[in-house]
Amino acid sequence: MDESLRKQALGNMSLAEARERLLLSFRFSPQTERVPVPQARGRVTAEPVYARLSMPPFPAAAMDGIAVRADRTRDASPARPLRLEEGVDCHPVDTGDPLPQGMDAVIRLERIRRIDGRTVEIREPAVPWKHVRSVGEDVAQGEMILPAHHRIRPVDLGVLLAGGVTEVPVISKPRVAVLPTGSELVPPGRALKRGEIFEFNGAVFSAYLEEWGAEPDYRGIVRDDPELLKRAILEAAEGCDWVVVNAGSSVGSEDYTHDVVRELGEVILHGVATSPGSPVLLGKVRNKPVIGLPGYPVAAYLALEWFVRPLIDHWFKVKADPRPRLRVRLEEDVRSKEGREHFVRVSIGRIGDRYAARPLPRGAGSALSLARADGLLRIPARRGLLRAGEEVEAELLRPKERIDRTLWVAGGQDPVLELLVNRIRRERLPFSLSTAGIGSLRGLHSLARGGCHMAAIHLGDEGDGVEHRRWVRRFLPGKEVLLLRLAARPLGWLVAKGNPAGFSGAEDLSRRGIRFINRQEGSGTRLFLDRLLRENGIDPSTVDGYDREVLSPWEVAAAVEEGSADVGLGTPALARRFGLDFLPLRDDPFDLVIPLEVAESEAGRLLIELVRSDAFRAAAASLEKGGLERPADGHGE
Amino acid sequence: MDESLRKQALGNMSLAEARERLLLSFRFSPQTERVPVPQARGRVTAEPVYARLSMPPFPAAAMDGIAVRADRTRDASPARPLRLEEGVDCHPVDTGDPLPQGMDAVIRLERIRRIDGRTVEIREPAVPWKHVRSVGEDVAQGEMILPAHHRIRPVDLGVLLAGGVTEVPVISKPRVAVLPTGSELVPPGRALKRGEIFEFNGAVFSAYLEEWGAEPDYRGIVRDDPELLKRAILEAAEGCDWVVVNAGSSVGSEDYTHDVVRELGEVILHGVATSPGSPVLLGKVRNKPVIGLPGYPVAAYLALEWFVRPLIDHWFKVKADPRPRLRVRLEEDVRSKEGREHFVRVSIGRIGDRYAARPLPRGAGSALSLARADGLLRIPARRGLLRAGEEVEAELLRPKERIDRTLWVAGGQDPVLELLVNRIRRERLPFSLSTAGIGSLRGLHSLARGGCHMAAIHLGDEGDGVEHRRWVRRFLPGKEVLLLRLAARPLGWLVAKGNPAGFSGAEDLSRRGIRFINRQEGSGTRLFLDRLLRENGIDPSTVDGYDREVLSPWEVAAAVEEGSADVGLGTPALARRFGLDFLPLRDDPFDLVIPLEVAESEAGRLLIELVRSDAFRAAAASLEKGGLERPADGHGE
Repeated sequence: MDESLRKQALGNMSLAEARERLLLSFRFSPQTERVPVPQARGRVTAEPVYARLSMPPFPAAAMDGIAVRADRTRDASPARPLRLEEGVDCHPVDTGDPLPQGMDAVIRLERIRRIDGRTVEIREPAVPWKHVRSVGEDVAQGEMILPAHHRIRPVDLGVLLAGGVTEVPVISKPRVAVLPTGSELVPPGRALKRGEIFEFNGAVFSAYLEEWGAEPDYRGIVRDDPELLKRAILEAAEGCDWVVVNAGSSVGSEDYTHDVVRELGEVILHGVATSPGSPVLLGKVRNKPVIGLPGYPVAAYLALEWFVRPLIDHWFKVKADPRPRLRVRLEEDVRSKEGREHFVRVSIGRIGDRYAARPLPRGAGSALSLARADGLLRIPARRGLLRAGEEVEAELLRPKERIDRTLWVAGGQDPVLELLVNRIRRERLPFSLSTAGIGSLRGLHSLARGGCHMAAIHLGDEGDGVEHRRWVRRFLPGKEVLLLRLAARPLGWLVAKGNPAGFSGAEDLSRRGIRFINRQEGSGTRLFLDRLLRENGIDPSTVDGYDREVLSPWEVAAAVEEGSADVGLGTPALARRFGLDFLPLRDDPFDLVIPLEVAESEAGRLLIELVRSDAFRAAAASLEKGGLERPADGHGE
Repeated sequence: MDESLRKQALGNMSLAEARERLLLSFRFSPQTERVPVPQARGRVTAEPVYARLSMPPFPAAAMDGIAVRADRTRDASPARPLRLEEGVDCHPVDTGDPLPQGMDAVIRLERIRRIDGRTVEIREPAVPWKHVRSVGEDVAQGEMILPAHHRIRPVDLGVLLAGGVTEVPVISKPRVAVLPTGSELVPPGRALKRGEIFEFNGAVFSAYLEEWGAEPDYRGIVRDDPELLKRAILEAAEGCDWVVVNAGSSVGSEDYTHDVVRELGEVILHGVATSPGSPVLLGKVRNKPVIGLPGYPVAAYLALEWFVRPLIDHWFKVKADPRPRLRVRLEEDVRSKEGREHFVRVSIGRIGDRYAARPLPRGAGSALSLARADGLLRIPARRGLLRAGEEVEAELLRPKERIDRTLWVAGGQDPVLELLVNRIRRERLPFSLSTAGIGSLRGLHSLARGGCHMAAIHLGDEGDGVEHRRWVRRFLPGKEVLLLRLAARPLGWLVAKGNPAGFSGAEDLSRRGIRFINRQEGSGTRLFLDRLLRENGIDPSTVDGYDREVLSPWEVAAAVEEGSADVGLGTPALARRFGLDFLPLRDDPFDLVIPLEVAESEAGRLLIELVRSDAFRAAAASLEKGGLERPADGHGE
């Protein structure tokens, strides 16, 4: 293999070693600021904080009642009640009142009988110091309220103020420059020319930095020009504590970060043995950390967490809590290249008393896959293939408690599932719905192995359920299931508005100049196509684009809309959303396959009730006509 | 029992029922706002959000390399390499570039040999659509990016912007009035007159409200005057969505909230069957929720979470994740009154492979105890006594992962332990230290039963370790332990500056007019006092204040400083912090008792190394002279 076109090869250091090397390269001496306590939430103490005053500042009544001198009540008994004169033998007190001079106990209101305006009666002696809060019982002057390097929570504010502390010394936030680079980038909201994409990683970095306690300084897009990049990094290093450069950190023809950092300072390392996230650059300019992150969103966000979050913790001297972990069973094989630590985004579902994990299908370019992930598998560099059925540890991105309350649907995809997800939320049903778009057949297969709660299928049913029942018997022999119809949408050809290619049906698929876009094997749509080709005697190898597989109906429609394909299979809902024409072929009912035990669970019953409601049926019908779901009050997009 | 002095009795509804009743009393119709995506972190979507554009918006190169038309590369092989002319047969592309018109595959840079400026050579055919990202592979136009009622995280911002969404419809935040009431309250920072205390709950409420997604509106202190309160509640109900009134919600002589709410609107309920937190008032004024919360900090913050947090979730239609739970073994009996659901703050330590929980000693008045708690036990109303050794479930207030890394010291108390806690943080050692001030004897007892990792003791050692070894043998027979000296401080009498009572020694303890303040049984200080009384032939019943027990050395010093006691036992460090005089009695070494297996663990070794370091010894010595711990750079309090 010839690597001569590469500017240089990426290094291959382990993540742990790379991080260690980064942290050892810098010693921070952040400033201390004094902030008013009410504004201190989330800040980190610079020093231990001691109480300046005691709370309570005096011995105080802990109950509503009367304050007495206990030794003067010694003779009280039910047989011989004792009368006390207010203002002389006793003083009325409310909870929190200072104990009057000379008194040393409180008798609760409930134990007192009022005789007249000045006299009360008691039937038992007071216990010395009973119902009296001692000075400093809450917090005593001189006592440490908060240790150093502690992140301040709401409850801490109360202790600080109670202890007479009104300003708290906190560590200044590190100011982090965010420098997106790339001539193809434009600010979100502009009209895109072909070849341009929105710069969106910067907003994500800024939000994470804020969440982790740093102060982001978004400095705008820098074009791919080494001189511009040099100036931008220098200015950022002078005005900020650290610099995060996004993309340009690999070794492509327009990746200048490495050379610029080497010229301005020092490259600590370039490239780590991870997948995704390998093209990372760690450097030093003006004695400040410069972190070059990959451009693909998932890689970028993971690498931000690997390198920038520990820098923040290092700055504040706080210890991050590792993510909670959970043992999960893999639903699919997971391939990993030896020599690289792999990070795999997974959905996790609780099926019975164990947790099933399924890798999310999309690549490192898909922020959506990270947004939808429930957890991350970390596969050590020396592992290689993990087999379906293996038990592994996942780091959780969502709380286990939420995963426990989630119903998991695997199989076909349709906007009606999105509708269902939203209605469950709007009605505040006590569970969530998570969907894995893996195709109808794999959905049934997964259900058969206990990999999900329900399958979503569209496998050529005629509307009477016969064909769907046949598939269910084949995959789940002997299993009692409920088939719940979500939609009875048509399936047909999606072509550009006005059908400029003059596509007229299956027989045109092998016509020269017609570019098709296909779905992956195991999807209901692919199954339908293959049958159609057989029935029409068309050899798949004559169909241009038969190999062009995408994983969702949206991608089919998007490719036709964009013009890189002329035709694909889809539904009227998709055609309307994308402004395409639709040539109907047949009805294609979309069903949920619900095992009896799920249907009879609380969540299952509520789900079925919802789907059968008039409101849901009406919304689903409107969806088939191409509408988006709108909120109840009509303020839609 | 006569309750005639009470204005009315508190109700006794269960917490779950009370919350249900509150939520059923209100139906919210919050406004929708559109906010720019970069500002949307933490906000909650009002509607599902769909992609307006596809990302990538065109088929894009997924690798650096050349774009080709796959069917034109069919004949390439290692034996017969194929030459391609740039600009004709192929086009150079960087990752992310649009696939040039007519091309349908990318060949990676590593698979290409450059021949000259215009010609490259390949040795195998391209696979159609390989290394090409399909249109919408990340997110496709029309696809749902976020469901309704979803709290937006940093990663979601990227998906929104990638999908061409620049503004996101979110639910407006509920504006919550915070009304502290009480004539004894003054704003923090003012000089306190006797009987006054700082208003600090309001800052804590505001911070929690912010953290949960609401917008607090702190409206300042209202004096105990029904007319003022009435006006304040009315104005708050008009200007805000909900009103939180702090204190005045019980039935004491100055608790007006109930009557005022009844006059202005409706009382939904008054009093719940919990401990702490029972004096809660739930009402409706101008059709808006009014929540009256108890005054004691712990009760107030718990009740805020019980009632106001669910209102917030109700407003946004989000589901709160319950706190993680953990099975713990109780280290002490926990008494609970039948008929009330009890909430007990506990410290939790991981000892070997199980978790030990110890109730924090302080009352509902102590915000510090809530700040220090690791978890909460919820004891159902019908339970009664829980025995030490029982296994129960705790709700975690700190992550389990942090508890797992914490060494737990139980026993005596001294500022040197605070020093140790801080130094461990400053040095970023890979563990934390948690201390339970339960007295030296109970510390040893707890260590013997596996209730903590180490005990802290001061039990009258002469400095040679003999006495302390004797105690260890008694409590931990046959156990190998290391005794680690933390401090060799003197113990003596604390008296007010100038010793106005003319206290001269133990023989004065039974002198008329001398008010002593004592420590609890089992503490080293109490043990010392009792021996001193025996040696001097003093009958404890003749000592005024012998029954006045407090749980920490700080409280002893605070009471002497405040003037409600004339003398107590303590150390010079305390005397200097509180500006007291100190009359020395004897040296009182303070040791850590560390079982061998703990001493040999990683955390144990690092701890011992730290304590034996010159820097720590110097800081501990300065502490004994009365200094507070100061940060390394000298910017102390």
